[in-house]
Amino acid sequence: MDYSQQQGKLKASIIGASGYSGAELTRLLMKHPAVTLENLYAHTQAGRNFSELYPAVGCDLDFQSYSGQSESDIYFLALPHGEALQVVPGLISAGKMVVDLSGDFRLKNPAEHERFYGGKKGGDHVLQYGMPELFRDAIRKSSAISNPGCYATSIILGLAPLFMDGRRTLTVESVNVTSVSGISGAGRSSKVELSFSEMSGNVKAYKVGCHQHTPEIMQTLGSSTVDPGFRFIFTPMIAPYVRGIYSVLNVQLASPVSQQARCDLYRDFYAGAPFVRLRDGVTEVSHVAHTNFCDISLAWHSDDSLVIVTAIDNLVKGAAGQAVQNMNLMLGLDETTALL
Amino acid sequence: MDYSQQQGKLKASIIGASGYSGAELTRLLMKHPAVTLENLYAHTQAGRNFSELYPAVGCDLDFQSYSGQSESDIYFLALPHGEALQVVPGLISAGKMVVDLSGDFRLKNPAEHERFYGGKKGGDHVLQYGMPELFRDAIRKSSAISNPGCYATSIILGLAPLFMDGRRTLTVESVNVTSVSGISGAGRSSKVELSFSEMSGNVKAYKVGCHQHTPEIMQTLGSSTVDPGFRFIFTPMIAPYVRGIYSVLNVQLASPVSQQARCDLYRDFYAGAPFVRLRDGVTEVSHVAHTNFCDISLAWHSDDSLVIVTAIDNLVKGAAGQAVQNMNLMLGLDETTALL
Amino acid sequence: MDYSQQQGKLKASIIGASGYSGAELTRLLMKHPAVTLENLYAHTQAGRNFSELYPAVGCDLDFQSYSGQSESDIYFLALPHGEALQVVPGLISAGKMVVDLSGDFRLKNPAEHERFYGGKKGGDHVLQYGMPELFRDAIRKSSAISNPGCYATSIILGLAPLFMDGRRTLTVESVNVTSVSGISGAGRSSKVELSFSEMSGNVKAYKVGCHQHTPEIMQTLGSSTVDPGFRFIFTPMIAPYVRGIYSVLNVQLASPVSQQARCDLYRDFYAGAPFVRLRDGVTEVSHVAHTNFCDISLAWHSDDSLVIVTAIDNLVKGAAGQAVQNMNLMLGLDETTALL
Amino acid sequence: MDYSQQQGKLKASIIGASGYSGAELTRLLMKHPAVTLENLYAHTQAGRNFSELYPAVGCDLDFQSYSGQSESDIYFLALPHGEALQVVPGLISAGKMVVDLSGDFRLKNPAEHERFYGGKKGGDHVLQYGMPELFRDAIRKSSAISNPGCYATSIILGLAPLFMDGRRTLTVESVNVTSVSGISGAGRSSKVELSFSEMSGNVKAYKVGCHQHTPEIMQTLGSSTVDPGFRFIFTPMIAPYVRGIYSVLNVQLASPVSQQARCDLYRDFYAGAPFVRLRDGVTEVSHVAHTNFCDISLAWHSDDSLVIVTAIDNLVKGAAGQAVQNMNLMLGLDETTALL
Repeated sequence: MDYSQQQGKLKASIIGASGYSGAELTRLLMKHPAVTLENLYAHTQAGRNFSELYPAVGCDLDFQSYSGQSESDIYFLALPHGEALQVVPGLISAGKMVVDLSGDFRLKNPAEHERFYGGKKGGDHVLQYGMPELFRDAIRKSSAISNPGCYATSIILGLAPLFMDGRRTLTVESVNVTSVSGISGAGRSSKVELSFSEMSGNVKAYKVGCHQHTPEIMQTLGSSTVDPGFRFIFTPMIAPYVRGIYSVLNVQLASPVSQQARCDLYRDFYAGAPFVRLRDGVTEVSHVAHTNFCDISLAWHSDDSLVIVTAIDNLVKGAAGQAVQNMNLMLGLDETTALL
Repeated sequence: MDYSQQQGKLKASIIGASGYSGAELTRLLMKHPAVTLENLYAHTQAGRNFSELYPAVGCDLDFQSYSGQSESDIYFLALPHGEALQVVPGLISAGKMVVDLSGDFRLKNPAEHERFYGGKKGGDHVLQYGMPELFRDAIRKSSAISNPGCYATSIILGLAPLFMDGRRTLTVESVNVTSVSGISGAGRSSKVELSFSEMSGNVKAYKVGCHQHTPEIMQTLGSSTVDPGFRFIFTPMIAPYVRGIYSVLNVQLASPVSQQARCDLYRDFYAGAPFVRLRDGVTEVSHVAHTNFCDISLAWHSDDSLVIVTAIDNLVKGAAGQAVQNMNLMLGLDETTALL
Repeated sequence: MDYSQQQGKLKASIIGASGYSGAELTRLLMKHPAVTLENLYAHTQAGRNFSELYPAVGCDLDFQSYSGQSESDIYFLALPHGEALQVVPGLISAGKMVVDLSGDFRLKNPAEHERFYGGKKGGDHVLQYGMPELFRDAIRKSSAISNPGCYATSIILGLAPLFMDGRRTLTVESVNVTSVSGISGAGRSSKVELSFSEMSGNVKAYKVGCHQHTPEIMQTLGSSTVDPGFRFIFTPMIAPYVRGIYSVLNVQLASPVSQQARCDLYRDFYAGAPFVRLRDGVTEVSHVAHTNFCDISLAWHSDDSLVIVTAIDNLVKGAAGQAVQNMNLMLGLDETTALL
Repeated sequence: MDYSQQQGKLKASIIGASGYSGAELTRLLMKHPAVTLENLYAHTQAGRNFSELYPAVGCDLDFQSYSGQSESDIYFLALPHGEALQVVPGLISAGKMVVDLSGDFRLKNPAEHERFYGGKKGGDHVLQYGMPELFRDAIRKSSAISNPGCYATSIILGLAPLFMDGRRTLTVESVNVTSVSGISGAGRSSKVELSFSEMSGNVKAYKVGCHQHTPEIMQTLGSSTVDPGFRFIFTPMIAPYVRGIYSVLNVQLASPVSQQARCDLYRDFYAGAPFVRLRDGVTEVSHVAHTNFCDISLAWHSDDSLVIVTAIDNLVKGAAGQAVQNMNLMLGLDETTALL
């Protein structure tokens, strides 16, 4: 479907528009030249104006309760996990384009879905996993996308060249991941433990070894949590800032590879990726905040191991920005439209 | 009552021990040489251990539900406004010493109490207003104290020499106050608007011209909100930090007073006050954080006006520290015991 | 000069591009449809790439040392105070358009300039004061602009309707201003006292009653610091966040004015101003961060006094955004181009 | 030397008292019942009063230039690396007790010292490595202590039971460490990159795989960086808060060990350690801030691997608090004196 030839703008709506990802989607779609933002759905905020919650964005649409698709051409879903399952099938049946930011359609394996998300996966509506750097051609041909998780984006992009390069002869023995996320990753929250007074000056790990992005990472790298083929441990934590995920990936290889070969591998792999930047020094969260970039640094190496550091903005490349990047591809537009 | 001569330690309990003021009281009383901390009451947390909420304090008492006084000698109340009213009379009847940190007993005028706190004031249990720098002798003779509000402390101490010096011939025409508070002043809160993601990078005013500490300030300075005798406007705001109140007091005088006379006035007035520090430069919040000090700077002056800046830690001098200071006076101890 | 009719884009350069205002200008001009960013000058960083300092902006120009104007059509100067004086006359002589963000050309009175900036003012190169909401027509006809100070913008826009409305019969007796600024207002600094460890959790006032924006405010409101005609005291302070100025303006009037009349006054005054938003509730810094908006709340009133609260982003509306807004007007473009 | 029997207090002085560790030492020693704080040395601040830099501490000693030992009994050195080398030998010769907080005397291997600290190690003045939980008896008999590094403390205490338990049959294959430090770890700094504006909202790794605490960790665990016997990679990073180090230790074992056996191992190992707390849930930085505790959580495990999380305050247990703990042991006092 090549919307780049189409007359006029597409109509877009956001279901679940009152959270941080929904607000960031609103901000991006308002400025998108190919799209008119039509409806903002958020049942808990129905009747309120978007600008009451997010005055800086400058959008004055009212929130509505969603009660079935309208005349929009494309729907972005930024709902809590479990809720998109109820809505996506109807949208697809009605011929709408869909980008779902939840975890509801990410995992192919129903048992893993049940284990990590605690509910049954929906039917056969398999959506294309929307990581453009890895699946650009498939996304271009899709009309329904499952948008990656924020941690998963920061980790998969850091590891993909080691696992998914067609020519590779590398064998990975183990990957130890520690990620630091800004607190916006927990959503627009009323939990005491996420209050300013509790989180100022605080750092804490959570879901150590059992975060739901683990199977998503394994699946994308061509493995599985049941029989991974290499050791993988992921420790997420939050620190006192709002935006950004910083991942430190310690990789142990089965045999030595030269530093030059690794650099070449990464440069070749991401040659056509406008949002992945291979950085000579060690990247920082502030280098990517409020952008759709994923920065990758090969920060350290020995003969048979390396430390890779990645940085993204969790609300942009880790959510709304990547969703728009996926839409751009589906519409036949330049991947970077409204994102640079 | 001179407890300094008594054998053994007094037993102290805290009612409402799970909030930030209660936790700070716990920390201070644990290290107090004249006191044994007996019971921590907090009905919403009953059964949990204090150290689950505040592991850094190192206290392992369990929270209990309060159901009438026990064997403690002195009770600190750090309850939400309106709840202390139900408890204090019984404690007084039972002969207990009381320090109440709520607003329930601060105002003498029932109409003002109803207007600013939205409920009826209790009966005739008039507690001594516990600002040691102004009412040291009265506090020494008291056994029941109403502890001042945090903003009120920072503002009253900055203004008192102008209003309460016996020899003064100063006439104040107007006082414009703007105060910045750390977010702990809002308590241990689950409000979305006090979450880290909402308050990081944010500053906002609230209750402009109608904060409940206004009548407390006026009453203490010898005036009233009904017929103040001078203009008074108070704008509180919060900024992204945890502890401390910073007040800027713009005072207009009816007639000129020399800078030397003003400095002398403040130095004389606070000559015997161990926690008030007159600072030559402009004080800062970090200068008083985690201390019981109230710093005062005479930051600017013209012939007939001045800008006074004060800084306190809202949880220490603005709450728990001042409460312990009051207890020290009631017990005949050195005012600074366990506070330096 | 109506550049809106011109073929092709204008060339723009920034002198002093390595500071925060310069970087924000770079970000805005990169996306501006009428401009091509040509040269970034910053002698302390000459030879380095812009993206080394500000990787998130995505600009890969190298910093150069400025050694006389080049082929650019318009020059933005974001130099430390005192340095623009040396450069602006040459640019004007060469027929270049200029927007100067320093304080060098803001004050008309040489004595005040010397008192507050500590050096002699330049010659007769009087630049148009670039506050579009007040001087839109004059700016449209200008080719050299002196861009307002950040505090001054937040304060003047909050007060202007009271002073500059042609029909007004209001008489202002006194204005007490307290402003809180984010730390970026101090520039890209290596001072110990602006380090993260010193400023986290800290608030402090500075230059109480003597900030250099005071005469700029008085001059714009039609008064002077020598003989102001009303009392004016300004206390700036910094708090632990990066972007934004929040000003609390306490105004005492000589005679009563109804709240309705005041609201009407402000609405009429800013009827055609796309970046001034009159807010019903009390605005917050987060409502304007990263935008060119100036939010104004009439937060409190009595018969003859009022509290006005304003919020801007100091780097956008307080510096780079307002500079671009001025350029838009000079070029005959829509005032909001590249700013919404 | 058993000072607990001695009449009167010991005199203590701090050399390098103007940095954050020196200030924290000052705070702790002021309240220590066995010590009188005599001199604060800091040549860059000589003549200024301590309270100008740290008004919250409440110490009014003047900084002096150090020109040879005085009458103090014990000297704490909080100097930049390389400077303690010049001072310690003289103090030891003069019969003074010494606690050196620098890295100058930590490493036994001169080649490693030169590689990681970039200078020659001093002569034969081998100081006792002052980690009380591991070397309590040796410290009690010492009069000169080399105080551990902050990262090293947080990492060694998390790993020691696996390596240093006499009965252990565990074999560790690899340890991957990622630590997050508050910015005070970089000292009282005037670096632009540590300014509030640069570090707010930022996270960054540095010295990946080459931090100078690496050989200290290896040496203490009974290994060496030259021939470690197990894989070890350490990535330190800083995040936007002031105090605390949070370390995530991913340990791969050669053979399975039951979770019960591991818990028992840690409980037994730290049975007599008053400042190590084994926490059931996952600890947080706020749980230890401003305390001398080291919290350890066994946060995750599989048959042959585990994730250990530790938290300390870098200025207390990671510097000044541990230094006082060492002094307490040297003096024959209770280890916790002035630290709880």
